[in-house]
Amino acid sequence: MHIKYSTERIFDILGPDYISVGQYEGEIIGIASLSDGATGDLSFLGNSKYRSCLANSEASVILVPLDYEELPQKGQIYIKVKNPSYALALICRDIEFSLTPKPKVGIHPSAIIEPGAQVSPNASIGAFCYIASGAQVGAAVLESHVSIGRSALVADEAYLFSRVSVGEYCEIGPRNRLMAGCVIGSDGYGYEFVENSHQRVPQLGNVVTEADVDIGANTCIDRARFGSTQIGLGTKIDNQVQIAHNVKIGQHCLIVAQVGISGSVVLGDGVVIGGQSGIAGHLNIGTGAMIAAGTSVFVDIEPQAKARGYPAMPMMQFNRIAVLQRKLPEFFKRFDQLEKTVNSIVNS
Amino acid sequence: MHIKYSTERIFDILGPDYISVGQYEGEIIGIASLSDGATGDLSFLGNSKYRSCLANSEASVILVPLDYEELPQKGQIYIKVKNPSYALALICRDIEFSLTPKPKVGIHPSAIIEPGAQVSPNASIGAFCYIASGAQVGAAVLESHVSIGRSALVADEAYLFSRVSVGEYCEIGPRNRLMAGCVIGSDGYGYEFVENSHQRVPQLGNVVTEADVDIGANTCIDRARFGSTQIGLGTKIDNQVQIAHNVKIGQHCLIVAQVGISGSVVLGDGVVIGGQSGIAGHLNIGTGAMIAAGTSVFVDIEPQAKARGYPAMPMMQFNRIAVLQRKLPEFFKRFDQLEKTVNSIVNS
Amino acid sequence: MHIKYSTERIFDILGPDYISVGQYEGEIIGIASLSDGATGDLSFLGNSKYRSCLANSEASVILVPLDYEELPQKGQIYIKVKNPSYALALICRDIEFSLTPKPKVGIHPSAIIEPGAQVSPNASIGAFCYIASGAQVGAAVLESHVSIGRSALVADEAYLFSRVSVGEYCEIGPRNRLMAGCVIGSDGYGYEFVENSHQRVPQLGNVVTEADVDIGANTCIDRARFGSTQIGLGTKIDNQVQIAHNVKIGQHCLIVAQVGISGSVVLGDGVVIGGQSGIAGHLNIGTGAMIAAGTSVFVDIEPQAKARGYPAMPMMQFNRIAVLQRKLPEFFKRFDQLEKTVNSIVNS
Repeated sequence: MHIKYSTERIFDILGPDYISVGQYEGEIIGIASLSDGATGDLSFLGNSKYRSCLANSEASVILVPLDYEELPQKGQIYIKVKNPSYALALICRDIEFSLTPKPKVGIHPSAIIEPGAQVSPNASIGAFCYIASGAQVGAAVLESHVSIGRSALVADEAYLFSRVSVGEYCEIGPRNRLMAGCVIGSDGYGYEFVENSHQRVPQLGNVVTEADVDIGANTCIDRARFGSTQIGLGTKIDNQVQIAHNVKIGQHCLIVAQVGISGSVVLGDGVVIGGQSGIAGHLNIGTGAMIAAGTSVFVDIEPQAKARGYPAMPMMQFNRIAVLQRKLPEFFKRFDQLEKTVNSIVNS
Repeated sequence: MHIKYSTERIFDILGPDYISVGQYEGEIIGIASLSDGATGDLSFLGNSKYRSCLANSEASVILVPLDYEELPQKGQIYIKVKNPSYALALICRDIEFSLTPKPKVGIHPSAIIEPGAQVSPNASIGAFCYIASGAQVGAAVLESHVSIGRSALVADEAYLFSRVSVGEYCEIGPRNRLMAGCVIGSDGYGYEFVENSHQRVPQLGNVVTEADVDIGANTCIDRARFGSTQIGLGTKIDNQVQIAHNVKIGQHCLIVAQVGISGSVVLGDGVVIGGQSGIAGHLNIGTGAMIAAGTSVFVDIEPQAKARGYPAMPMMQFNRIAVLQRKLPEFFKRFDQLEKTVNSIVNS
Repeated sequence: MHIKYSTERIFDILGPDYISVGQYEGEIIGIASLSDGATGDLSFLGNSKYRSCLANSEASVILVPLDYEELPQKGQIYIKVKNPSYALALICRDIEFSLTPKPKVGIHPSAIIEPGAQVSPNASIGAFCYIASGAQVGAAVLESHVSIGRSALVADEAYLFSRVSVGEYCEIGPRNRLMAGCVIGSDGYGYEFVENSHQRVPQLGNVVTEADVDIGANTCIDRARFGSTQIGLGTKIDNQVQIAHNVKIGQHCLIVAQVGISGSVVLGDGVVIGGQSGIAGHLNIGTGAMIAAGTSVFVDIEPQAKARGYPAMPMMQFNRIAVLQRKLPEFFKRFDQLEKTVNSIVNS
């Protein structure tokens, strides 16, 4: 990553809401963590865990919280902002435009658009993309090897990385970002055991994502048995997540990597699910609920509740029990001792 | 999903084994759950959990169990059958033919069939498919971007969704359904630590699936070190499952999403493994065993046994212990009290 | 797998460090486990668990440990070596060359190399590969449908199986093996919650792998927020592993299938992580640490430590507690009994 950037440009982006302390005259040529940062680098204090690294950081330009009182070294500038992490995000978005220019509008000569498909003249369709009959693709970007099934829809400003597969009849909302290898609209896993074998239950529905949804690499979202598997506005899904048929996910949820959500689960708005958690079928997860990483949920979760464990329980309860479990070896000894004492009383 | 369907067609499909109560004269224009169903919709009572939704359902045609005694509303018909869920599956299979017509026979002009590969004249080979030398593809359907390795076999009526990869020498059985992005025949994970580094152990075997196997999206099945990794007749594997080298899976098993099965594990027939479970290497899982979701198995499991937990134990034992664990905070208090009582006896 | 092989060739490969007992005159036509082996097969005793299968094995040529004292049957040969499993690996590597000849050098006519990309004349570029502008590919093998992003590097002797995706600016080291469907350089999962929605934090860094790294099928490695997500020399990663942004993995680590490693985690050298384990963000895992399968790590792990459980604790402690947990039902009964005894003392 080779960048050329200036503190002036940073001030432009931050607007009036910053205080700068110290001075750095040179060019910004990189971005790095506090400990990796060297002369010319932009860095930031985003997690208070790293506060001790700040004083020794050799980065030249450092975004710090408004309440940070220490002074920079010579030739170093601290830029105080309300949220250093978000301030960095704004700067990085600006840098991103130069590092990763938006692909050119147009259809790569190797792409195949079947008769009956509609592609916006403002779309960018990459090499080896396949767009089936009846599909409609708006002013979106499709990188290489993307497959859009029959009668599927891709809205404006969606960005599909390489090897994304959107199954027939599925609908991808505006400004969605679909990472490489994700599969939207695979068959739901539904069988009836009849005459000694598992008979497939056809999955006639689709997947519908609202605006501003992100879907991670190699994540799978199954089509509904009928109706739609739904992902709400602004929800962000990480890599290798599995979302089964007929799931309905609310708005602005965060679903971290390797989570599995079973069929017909309903998530309210603003739910956060930590990595590798699993949710059994037909459950309701209330608005604003938080599920800790590695949790297995087998019952409904109330709005705003925090759950953890296998099986899931209220987080406070889990944490209390986890402490006691570690005391079990000592506890068994205390018990043996007490039993001995009681027996000696009885026998005396 | 826009459908046009009639109750008469449903009666045709169900044959003589149904009882109808009430009447609906219109067309069926959708399928929906009991709570989502509106006029014109077909619905069903498949899970007794939803029985309370039935009376208020606005669906026009509802499949119910034979023993359901309530009467439909005006303009509504109940069709009583032994297994409403399976009855719906039969109807949906009929609808599926119209929604998703089978792709046309033939080879897409963009597909590449290497010299020495054999493709049935009844196969349907999609855009950007690659079939390597020595491979044999029967009267199967390959959607776009499918890759078939050297000397691999794909039997008749197999259906490979987009971006499936079948490695060299692997054999896919008749009527298999391979979802998008699954990888059949990746290298087994085998190394010997020699001279301070991990030396790769060549994986010379293949993967063989019997008839009627389903394999989920982005699932991986590794080739054997030698011999074959085997998947038995009628076994259904969900998305993002990992099956390591030399595993042998019996017939009619169900393996739910995100399960991991380590090397050389043997599963009997009819095993059911819940989502996100893991099985350590070289274990035997007996015929008909059931492993609850989220379980980690480190010992052999007896036929028909039910296992749960980390590490796995008999399910009854797990459930009993889970209850007691939640009592630990109270239990520790009771113990402290008892200890105090005993001490006061001793000291008196 | 049809092979034709001789005991003489085996002796050539093993060099002087073996002792042979017994004799087999025929050709070797297969490789099999001890229990599956038949006349003409090569087999081996690699795991002492299978020692009881050895006496009855019908394989003709069997690699056994130096200290194995039993005698072979008539027409059977035992070849004693220090490490039978590694000896077999050496033999198999020799067989692999004949079964899987290295793809021919050259660029498949269907591949697309964008202007400004550099491809070594010794590279083998498969069907439907896409190499973006500014990318550099050395004397590597790319199977079909591989996508190399803008300005990415692929070093000499790397082997990329079908459908691998290497994102822009990422760097793949020499002799890496990337299994089908893996995604290198997907966006890190980073958001700031601002004005009631999750704002994407641009991920400007890349992924860098050192030499001799293996990466499993459908595994994902996210690009760093800035700087590099790093994979050290000789580290072997299994299928469906998720490695988040800014992770730094040391040399010669083993990371088994379905592991999830959260952002900014640092792994020392020689770390072993069992399948389905998870590591929370910003943690340090010390050199040589071992994490048992299915473990969830929420604290730093010391060098050489062994950890297990949810949440992770020292393995010995976990194993001790697991035993006591199974005793809880009996323990609760003993407690009730003791309480009764004490009460009767008090009341007497």
